[in-house]
Amino acid sequence: MRIAVVAPSCRLTEEAAEAVRAIVARRGDCELVVHPQSFLSDGHFAGPDEVRLAALREVMADPSFDAVWFARGGYGSNRIAEAAMTDLPSTARGKLYLGYSDAGFLHAGFHTAGLDVAWGPMPQDVLRDGGEVAVHRALDWIVRRDPAALEPALEGPSMAFNLTVLSNLLGTPLEPDFSGVDLLIEDIGEHLYRIDRSMFHVTASPAIRKVRRIRLGRVADVLPNDPAFACDETAIVESWCRRSGIQFGGRADIGHDARNRVVPFPARND
Amino acid sequence: MRIAVVAPSCRLTEEAAEAVRAIVARRGDCELVVHPQSFLSDGHFAGPDEVRLAALREVMADPSFDAVWFARGGYGSNRIAEAAMTDLPSTARGKLYLGYSDAGFLHAGFHTAGLDVAWGPMPQDVLRDGGEVAVHRALDWIVRRDPAALEPALEGPSMAFNLTVLSNLLGTPLEPDFSGVDLLIEDIGEHLYRIDRSMFHVTASPAIRKVRRIRLGRVADVLPNDPAFACDETAIVESWCRRSGIQFGGRADIGHDARNRVVPFPARND
Repeated sequence: MRIAVVAPSCRLTEEAAEAVRAIVARRGDCELVVHPQSFLSDGHFAGPDEVRLAALREVMADPSFDAVWFARGGYGSNRIAEAAMTDLPSTARGKLYLGYSDAGFLHAGFHTAGLDVAWGPMPQDVLRDGGEVAVHRALDWIVRRDPAALEPALEGPSMAFNLTVLSNLLGTPLEPDFSGVDLLIEDIGEHLYRIDRSMFHVTASPAIRKVRRIRLGRVADVLPNDPAFACDETAIVESWCRRSGIQFGGRADIGHDARNRVVPFPARND
Repeated sequence: MRIAVVAPSCRLTEEAAEAVRAIVARRGDCELVVHPQSFLSDGHFAGPDEVRLAALREVMADPSFDAVWFARGGYGSNRIAEAAMTDLPSTARGKLYLGYSDAGFLHAGFHTAGLDVAWGPMPQDVLRDGGEVAVHRALDWIVRRDPAALEPALEGPSMAFNLTVLSNLLGTPLEPDFSGVDLLIEDIGEHLYRIDRSMFHVTASPAIRKVRRIRLGRVADVLPNDPAFACDETAIVESWCRRSGIQFGGRADIGHDARNRVVPFPARND
C-alpha cells in the first residue's frame, strides 16, 4: 500500500510531515511518499498553480500509488481542479483520494469524473490537539477500509462538504450529482449570518434539492455577530431545510478537528 | 415625489434617519416617509422576516410612493426577496427601487420580475465620512434622474452587485438575466483569498459568462491574508476574466463609501 501526499491548496509544514512519517513507520502497514511540492510556498499557495497541478497529475498517473492523500486544506484547489479532472489517465482510477475542507473542490470534480473519493483527516491535522488519532483514522481507512473510521450514522450514499466550499462550487463544472445522497456539511471561522446566507444559497440550488437529506457536522470558531444572530447553527440549518423541502437528518460527526470521521462518496455506476 | 424608506436587511439608526430628514427638508423637492419597520430590531435583522416583508410589500403596493429606498445593507434581504417578488400588484411597477450591498438580492429578483431598480447610496450612508454628498447623489437620481449621479463610465446596459452577494444568488430563483450587460462588482471586509474564490465561482457560472464585460469597483477593508496573497484585487479579477473568456472593462466608481455612484439596471422590454 503506497500513499502519495500532495498539497493542491496550502503548504504542508515540515513538522507535520515528520510527525506523520513517524506514525507510518510505527504502523508498518503502508509506505508514505510526500511529494516535494507539498513544501513549496508561493504567496497563499503551496507553489504556483502549474506546479501544484503537475504534482497532482503526476501522482494520479503513477500506477505505484494506491492512494492520494491531500496534505491540508486552506484555499486553492479550485484553481486547478478542472484541469486535474481533464483527460484522466486510466491509472488515475482505482486509487482513493482522501481529504476535506478546501479539497472539496477536488472531491466534487473527481467524483464527477468517476474517481473514488472520501472525506477524511489530512496529514496537517497531526498537529491538532489529539491529531495523531485523526491520522491513524485516515490511515485505517486508506490501508484497510476499517469501518471504525467511518462517520458512525452513515446510511446509504453520502457526501460531505465544507458548507462555504459547497456554496462556491455550485454551478461550476465541478458540481457533482447529489441525487439521493445524504449531504453532510460543516464549517469553521464564519459569522452565523454567513452560515445563514450560504444555507440560503445552497438550499435554493435545484442540484442540492435532489439530496435525500442534509446532516450537520460541527460549525466551529464562529465569529462574533453584532448584534447576536438570535439562533444557533442547528436552527439555521433546520430552518433552511424546512423552507426548501429538504429533510434535516440531524447532527453528523465531522468537522475541522481531530474527531473528524471518514465519509466515502458513493461508488459511481457508470 | 414621495419616497418610502424600508429596511429589508438591518435596522436604520435614528441618527441616520434624522440626518436624512434634515437634508430632505433643506432640499424641498421631495417627501420622505420612513416606515416604522426601519427601526425595529430582531437579532441581526430589522424585525422578523414576516414584518420586514409586510413593510416592503406595503410600500411596493402603495400608489402614492414614487420610489422605495432601502435603508441600509448588512444581511437579510435574501430571506424575503422571493416572497417580495411574488404576485406583484400593478402598483409595484412604475416605482424606482434604490440601494446596494445586501439589497442586491432584491435588485436581482425585482429586475427579474420586471421592476425598475438601481444601485446607489442608501440613507444609512449619511453617517459615513462625506455621507451627506452620497445622500444628495441618491436623491438627485430618485427625484430628477440627474446624470451627474451616474457611474461616470457607464456604456450600455449595466448592473452592479456586491461580489459576495452575487456569488450567493447565482442559481437561486433571484438570478437575473445577465446577457450583454456590463457587470460592475465591488466588495468589502473580505480576505483576498475569498475574493479569488468568489471570482472562481462567479466566472464559472454560465449565466455570468453571458455578460459583455466585468468592471471592478472598490474592494475595501481587505482582511489580512497570512501569508500575503501575492497579488491585488485587480490582478485577481483580471485573471479570472482571462481564464473564463470574459472581457475585463477596468475599474468602476462604486463601493461601500460616500463616493459610491448610481448604476440603473437595464429597462426590461417585456
